Amino acid sequence: MSAVPLRNSKAAASAVRAVTVLGATGSIGDSTMDLLRASRDRYQVEALTAHTNVQALAKLAKEFGARFAAIADPDRLAELKDALAGTGIECGAGESAVIEAAARPADWVMAAVSGAAGLKPALAAVDRGATVALANKECLVCAGDFFMQRAAKAGACILPADSEHNALFQALGSGNREELVRVIITASGGPFRTWAIADIEQATLAQALKHPNWSMGQKITIDSASMMNKGLEVIEASYLFALAPDEIDVLVHPQSIIHGMVEFSDRSVVAQLGAPDMRTPIAHCLGWPDRIVGPAAKLDLAKIGQLTFEAPDFDRFPALRLAYEPCGQVAAPPQYITPQTRSRWRHSSRARSNLARSRGWSRRRSRPGYAPAISRH
Amino acid sequence: MSAVPLRNSKAAASAVRAVTVLGATGSIGDSTMDLLRASRDRYQVEALTAHTNVQALAKLAKEFGARFAAIADPDRLAELKDALAGTGIECGAGESAVIEAAARPADWVMAAVSGAAGLKPALAAVDRGATVALANKECLVCAGDFFMQRAAKAGACILPADSEHNALFQALGSGNREELVRVIITASGGPFRTWAIADIEQATLAQALKHPNWSMGQKITIDSASMMNKGLEVIEASYLFALAPDEIDVLVHPQSIIHGMVEFSDRSVVAQLGAPDMRTPIAHCLGWPDRIVGPAAKLDLAKIGQLTFEAPDFDRFPALRLAYEPCGQVAAPPQYITPQTRSRWRHSSRARSNLARSRGWSRRRSRPGYAPAISRH
Repeated sequence: MSAVPLRNSKAAASAVRAVTVLGATGSIGDSTMDLLRASRDRYQVEALTAHTNVQALAKLAKEFGARFAAIADPDRLAELKDALAGTGIECGAGESAVIEAAARPADWVMAAVSGAAGLKPALAAVDRGATVALANKECLVCAGDFFMQRAAKAGACILPADSEHNALFQALGSGNREELVRVIITASGGPFRTWAIADIEQATLAQALKHPNWSMGQKITIDSASMMNKGLEVIEASYLFALAPDEIDVLVHPQSIIHGMVEFSDRSVVAQLGAPDMRTPIAHCLGWPDRIVGPAAKLDLAKIGQLTFEAPDFDRFPALRLAYEPCGQVAAPPQYITPQTRSRWRHSSRARSNLARSRGWSRRRSRPGYAPAISRH
Repeated sequence: MSAVPLRNSKAAASAVRAVTVLGATGSIGDSTMDLLRASRDRYQVEALTAHTNVQALAKLAKEFGARFAAIADPDRLAELKDALAGTGIECGAGESAVIEAAARPADWVMAAVSGAAGLKPALAAVDRGATVALANKECLVCAGDFFMQRAAKAGACILPADSEHNALFQALGSGNREELVRVIITASGGPFRTWAIADIEQATLAQALKHPNWSMGQKITIDSASMMNKGLEVIEASYLFALAPDEIDVLVHPQSIIHGMVEFSDRSVVAQLGAPDMRTPIAHCLGWPDRIVGPAAKLDLAKIGQLTFEAPDFDRFPALRLAYEPCGQVAAPPQYITPQTRSRWRHSSRARSNLARSRGWSRRRSRPGYAPAISRH
């Protein structure tokens, strides 16, 4: 034990962990399976799901000895049964099968089904109190309050798997929640960062799909081009960490090396950096509360040479400004925020305001010199 | 409580904390007194010391209602007594009085006496198990093993107050000690960063004292010009965090915004950033394990625009290379390192090697792809 007070893990995690990957054949699923492949002895795959790619799903299920495989497309059950014939791996098709996969007893679930279709399966994992690595934005963007309250009620543990939110989560480890002044979500700025409005209006699909740093699925890449994706991440952050809109700043950082930052009350800004490789935040979720060995390239800042930063342009990227509006409407469920932060929220219901008054929650300490970086309205 | 597992402090720290500042009139002392001034109700000043500036010491002692004031210069006792006449503040002069100041019962001690003279007073605080914010490098550079063992034995808590080491300490909060791959200490490069060797040889004192970013004492500013200071920080880090030399990298970063970084096993690099203002790391030490409100300027990366990085040049700055040598000789006292890291140390004594063998300490997990950034010899 050092005289410098450092965290030491109590014991090596030697027990085998049961894991389920929802959306195993997509971009996040690929990275997750890669990490599981590197530590086969530490993980037992309970269930895997895919959208339409039966062959890739069956191959993974066999490789990892999964107990259950589900294909979202209800018409492909026969094909999946064929592909898994003689393996003893159970299987199903359609939405209910994907939900069943999530409901089966795995300690850790990667929720990487893309789009609103990811909500019900993620809820099935949340409701049984699992540890859920959340890569799906829509759970929070479409149903943030509902989702987080269900998670709090079931005692589920939500680990942010998006690189930006994972960075914030890591940085928050250096302080207490109530010492947070603001979070800073970085944005590459996408392929149109330096384009004029008129040129953006004429952009082709191919141009929009050419992300400068990240290799991701098509939907998120298009959303990155308009910076709608960053807007969704603002909403996501507001629910994950119970933040008011003026506690969330967006900073354009074209190199995508700093993924997120937290400013604390003492003016320390703690950041997480790394090569733009989704295996790093996923590895963080997979190992949490410890850390496993990750396969990403070592960060070499001397070689990178420089990191640059710009304020976001809300005129050329109006989707980003738009995203701040629902955050202002976020209800702050007493279950997941602290009394210290409670009173700085705008509330969506009179009932909550009354509750706050009845509990006598008072304003937290003032923050001299602090002004929100982004002015809205 | 959030479904995202965040740290929440148990209760607001309302108790008044007794503090002592060793070296209260120097650069670090100034910043410390500034912070104490901003929260007068939370701190009771037990003792203050100064090197030769009797009047400044007496003024501070009166302002803060200190119980004891010590001047290191043994010939100035009468002058100090005069200055404190009628206040009821006890006082003393000479080395023994400074040691007495450190030995008096304060919960938190800032050890900011400059140079090797800081060792004995810091030890007096350490020996009674105090929380010691360590701004003095020499305690570790001259007597690292001895100092850290005494601290571990007394149950003292050493908080690194140097901006770089404080940054590492903050970043280490995001992981466990045994998940650390390497630390990265940043260096501004000093006033001669871009100078040719021949020009550095002809530099004047005034040129060497012109630090690009930090306003500090003269000794440390001169040490920064030769990068000897960064070398001392490498040695300091090796003792504070029980690191082998190949776990400590130096990175030239002229803007001094990122103060230190820790690379973890999953390839996440966690960093602490902030305006170059010593009040931030000192505030971190003063508030620890919570955080207080700090007065430094808000970090505005969009305004700063860019952060640049270079590998250090060991030919033009040979003092830095030199500093790695004693680290290789650091003994690894079993009291303050973990079994996992133990075996990667070079040991200075046969006794320790035998101890390691007798305990069967084994090599930690391998780190594929990892190679030290700095090759020596």
